[in-house]
Amino acid sequence: MNVAMIDDRIVDANQLDSSYLDRGLYFGDGVYEVLRSYNGKIFALDDHLARFTDSLAGVEIDGVDMNQIRSRVLKAFDTAKIPNAKIYFHVTRGSGPRDHNPAVNMNPNFFLTISEIGDYSKSKINGYTVSTYPDLRWKKCWIKSLNLLPNVLAKMDAAKKGCDEAILVDENGLITEGSSSAFFACVGRTIQTAPTSANILPSITRKYTMKAAHNLGLAFIEKSLTPEQAKNADELFLGVTTKDIIPVVKFDNLAIGSAAPGPITRKLISEFEKFTK
Amino acid sequence: MNVAMIDDRIVDANQLDSSYLDRGLYFGDGVYEVLRSYNGKIFALDDHLARFTDSLAGVEIDGVDMNQIRSRVLKAFDTAKIPNAKIYFHVTRGSGPRDHNPAVNMNPNFFLTISEIGDYSKSKINGYTVSTYPDLRWKKCWIKSLNLLPNVLAKMDAAKKGCDEAILVDENGLITEGSSSAFFACVGRTIQTAPTSANILPSITRKYTMKAAHNLGLAFIEKSLTPEQAKNADELFLGVTTKDIIPVVKFDNLAIGSAAPGPITRKLISEFEKFTK
Repeated sequence: MNVAMIDDRIVDANQLDSSYLDRGLYFGDGVYEVLRSYNGKIFALDDHLARFTDSLAGVEIDGVDMNQIRSRVLKAFDTAKIPNAKIYFHVTRGSGPRDHNPAVNMNPNFFLTISEIGDYSKSKINGYTVSTYPDLRWKKCWIKSLNLLPNVLAKMDAAKKGCDEAILVDENGLITEGSSSAFFACVGRTIQTAPTSANILPSITRKYTMKAAHNLGLAFIEKSLTPEQAKNADELFLGVTTKDIIPVVKFDNLAIGSAAPGPITRKLISEFEKFTK
Repeated sequence: MNVAMIDDRIVDANQLDSSYLDRGLYFGDGVYEVLRSYNGKIFALDDHLARFTDSLAGVEIDGVDMNQIRSRVLKAFDTAKIPNAKIYFHVTRGSGPRDHNPAVNMNPNFFLTISEIGDYSKSKINGYTVSTYPDLRWKKCWIKSLNLLPNVLAKMDAAKKGCDEAILVDENGLITEGSSSAFFACVGRTIQTAPTSANILPSITRKYTMKAAHNLGLAFIEKSLTPEQAKNADELFLGVTTKDIIPVVKFDNLAIGSAAPGPITRKLISEFEKFTK
């Protein structure tokens, strides 16, 4: 008899809910997106769907109808009636007996959750503290996949140090991005962040931050920073879908600027806000 | 209202089965083992439990009682009554709303399946064909984690080429291991495989293969091979828990030796068999 066991409970393997046979669980064989709404309006849906399409192609999950994904997101959002919502969804390659080599013609699984975004106004006022951690991730971080264990370990390390976010440093000693954020420095009137060729996720918040910087007449350069350069920057900040721009006030325990959100960061936050209206 | 959606079905997020909130699914935040039995006897259980303990420590999942894990494996095996069984189990950090930073005092989830190992005698007689693929994995492959997407992509590539296994080649041009196997070459009376320092899983089949080689008076060296060296070896073979030693007869479409299992590999298979009785 094919047996399964969930904690101490033995069950017939043929009676398992398909969620227990999801390749997302066995292999992290799936890709995801996180979106948000501002006051009842989903932000940058097209950008997120475009990136999701790229991620699906990157892991060769075929047969996903993007119009259907869009409809599902909109339907769930309409049902939830949460003005400032966090929308998470993933698609996995499908469910079946565990085998690295997927069966032919699997049906991808779609899963979505919507919840309210908590009040993060204090994060904008007080800023985040961050600490560095080695970038242990795989070589295709442009794919937003469910293989996030290195990100989790980085975030846990930051939490242990009393920090809000981990900043990943690769084997060349260069900062790639945060464990769940994009990372930016500001020197004078220039914003600097890693190029998308640096094994990072093409952050959508990054794209709109570039646009905001342009609107403010700031220079924007795509060049990786070392932790040393970050420490000496005038200002640092993060880009996160759910909170857009968050100032960084401490980097590896060292105060950045006056250990408070800097003037350029505050201007960028205001400029970004215009996109969300 | 917090909403979830499973394919086209909208559900109350509070009513979801905990399997949908498993960190194993969201992040691959868990570790696993695969064991097998030969004729009603589990092989190398202690080795697998020791490696599992290391994996748990590597990802800092605390509070797992290894005696309880052992009891569960034995209980499920007794229930299944499958003489030649494949036993898969994993532990994830727990279930909860998606957040990279885990909640304190999460309860780890245990999941296990037992199924019959199919007849693989033809694989031993005919051997496997293999093809190379870039090693895209993270930097801690000694942890047997649920982040297996690069392995899946490698295996899919091999299948597309009509091959049975993908052999991973790192950025230094060196073979690490197979997508779900250890990789060995044989030149004269010397067996060669990558050292465990080469970002590979400490394979238990590898350990017993070393023992078998020793019993047969063969030399064993731990040194990474290039694909070129592999192609020029007298024999190649794989180590896989569920099938122990499998001869490799083609490497990137090139016949190895006489394109049939070699004499040393066949001797190792017989010697390994003694351990399983």
